Amino acid sequence: MSPTNHQVRLAARPSGLPRASDWEFTSEEVPEPSSGQFVVAVSHLSIDPAMRGWMNAGGSYIAPVEIGAVMRAGGIGRVTASEHPGFAAGDEVYGVFGVQEYAVSDGRGVIKLDTTLAEPTTYLGALGTTGLTAYFALLDVGRVKPGDTVVVSGAAGAVGSVAGQIAKIKGCRVIGIAGGPEKCRTVVEEFGFDAALDYRAGNLRKALREHAPGGVDVYFDNVGGDILDAVLTCIARGARIIICGAVSQYNEARVRGPANYMMLLVARASMTGMLVFDYADRYPEAMAELAGWYRAGQLVSREHIVHGGVRAFPETLLMLFDGANTGKMILALDQG
Amino acid sequence: MSPTNHQVRLAARPSGLPRASDWEFTSEEVPEPSSGQFVVAVSHLSIDPAMRGWMNAGGSYIAPVEIGAVMRAGGIGRVTASEHPGFAAGDEVYGVFGVQEYAVSDGRGVIKLDTTLAEPTTYLGALGTTGLTAYFALLDVGRVKPGDTVVVSGAAGAVGSVAGQIAKIKGCRVIGIAGGPEKCRTVVEEFGFDAALDYRAGNLRKALREHAPGGVDVYFDNVGGDILDAVLTCIARGARIIICGAVSQYNEARVRGPANYMMLLVARASMTGMLVFDYADRYPEAMAELAGWYRAGQLVSREHIVHGGVRAFPETLLMLFDGANTGKMILALDQG
Repeated sequence: MSPTNHQVRLAARPSGLPRASDWEFTSEEVPEPSSGQFVVAVSHLSIDPAMRGWMNAGGSYIAPVEIGAVMRAGGIGRVTASEHPGFAAGDEVYGVFGVQEYAVSDGRGVIKLDTTLAEPTTYLGALGTTGLTAYFALLDVGRVKPGDTVVVSGAAGAVGSVAGQIAKIKGCRVIGIAGGPEKCRTVVEEFGFDAALDYRAGNLRKALREHAPGGVDVYFDNVGGDILDAVLTCIARGARIIICGAVSQYNEARVRGPANYMMLLVARASMTGMLVFDYADRYPEAMAELAGWYRAGQLVSREHIVHGGVRAFPETLLMLFDGANTGKMILALDQG
Repeated sequence: MSPTNHQVRLAARPSGLPRASDWEFTSEEVPEPSSGQFVVAVSHLSIDPAMRGWMNAGGSYIAPVEIGAVMRAGGIGRVTASEHPGFAAGDEVYGVFGVQEYAVSDGRGVIKLDTTLAEPTTYLGALGTTGLTAYFALLDVGRVKPGDTVVVSGAAGAVGSVAGQIAKIKGCRVIGIAGGPEKCRTVVEEFGFDAALDYRAGNLRKALREHAPGGVDVYFDNVGGDILDAVLTCIARGARIIICGAVSQYNEARVRGPANYMMLLVARASMTGMLVFDYADRYPEAMAELAGWYRAGQLVSREHIVHGGVRAFPETLLMLFDGANTGKMILALDQG
């Protein structure tokens, strides 16, 4: 008897925060793999702010999830059956398997995980797309150099926590911005930032000026909104602002643009958007470097794992938007 | 008997559009030059949107004009008396002489004009800081290449009209944005843009999509506001947005940031501020190239000259903000 595949599908396009009625729970039989295919039992899903964007209609960097389709998600799991020459039952793999317990794959975009180096979930964190995003954004777009003052927002989050650690490895002075004293403590004590500023404490501009008296050379922005505007007032001449995300704005009907953007002119600074997929041909070199730092204990991967199976997906996604997570948000499917 | 120097001084810091009460008219005797100095009878003043920013308190790329000081302005004029070894009576010069009829200078920042090449006022237009701004912004920040689709806002204005012409010289397809059918006609017929879009006609996005079906590679922004937001929706992958000005926002109490800035991420694009002063050591090479194009008839310098002397300065400045000018706005002092 074949197992059942529980799935979460997009039922409606949300306005604002996704609601229960925007999702549909379905189940199917797990099919047998055809020739050239294999089946993965998904163990953990990557829960990302970008998911909110995938739920919207209209042009973005990737096609929207269609109404009625299984929600898109990266995940890891174990191959249970294979008719594919490159994958065997028992392989631990990463791929965009969707919010479901089983996925049938032809191997495109699927990578095998080296579980001797790290726990599989680390490949959703510092050694996964999350880490690669931080790596290329900071080094290629931010072009950090030793001595730079680097500010990272969402510093306790998945990408931010890795970005700050890489900046430290590269010899920068690193200031994190996070919400609440506990996250700020983690940013300094666990992730090794030089300082952490609690944006909920108010007067972020003043705190930034105190901690970056010479101005901010590189700002790694994951949040947008007021925090981006505050940092803009403190940028150094020639500053590089990396637009990696805008989690404060994803559920807003009207996005608020950075009112202080003319500081780009005053400071002869740039603001540049990045998407990690553009660097696919350089993933191997980046992975090798990230893995080296991880092995040497210079890079901590923190994962915030929620247990509860696919039915817990809707509320787990919402946790990202009220700042509940520290490190990489992961949903464990806990099946089998 | 020495002549009288009529001046315009900043009386108060405006909020919103400058009002009559923000200015003070004064007069002084024109002093004799000391050793190392010379006196210039100013003939024409450069009237620039950036002047509005110089009137504000607080940090920018240049110190604010102090209350009670002569308003800062670039200008051209003729040396009337000199105790400076580098300048002689009769020399035609450019410098930041201020809104006044006579200026005493020690020669810093003053350049002599080649009046055999062009009329002196051209050195406030295409062969002046205006032209240099367009040149470095487009070529260094925008990195235009043949075949690029370039959009220029404020296309009938001083910097925009030159920027579009340089883009054409460099083999780009060039679309201007201007206010009203008459300006749009000038942009195409006089400045040689491939097309001009009238933002007052509404539905700028649709017009942009029709005229730039492959997306905008370089956007030269002089205006900010709604137009910047409209162009952001139409940028091509890897687009470069040059932030040269934001004339729509200079008199606003609350600047509106570009709500569509996350298109930078979608398109992996950049938005970069520039100030021409940073390129001072390369002015000679740029001037030589601009002068070559001018001499060859490839580059038109259009000047909008208002007569009326320094007393007409306040209303001439306001003309910039209601879109009254085509080409470089210049105030002729008409003295002597």
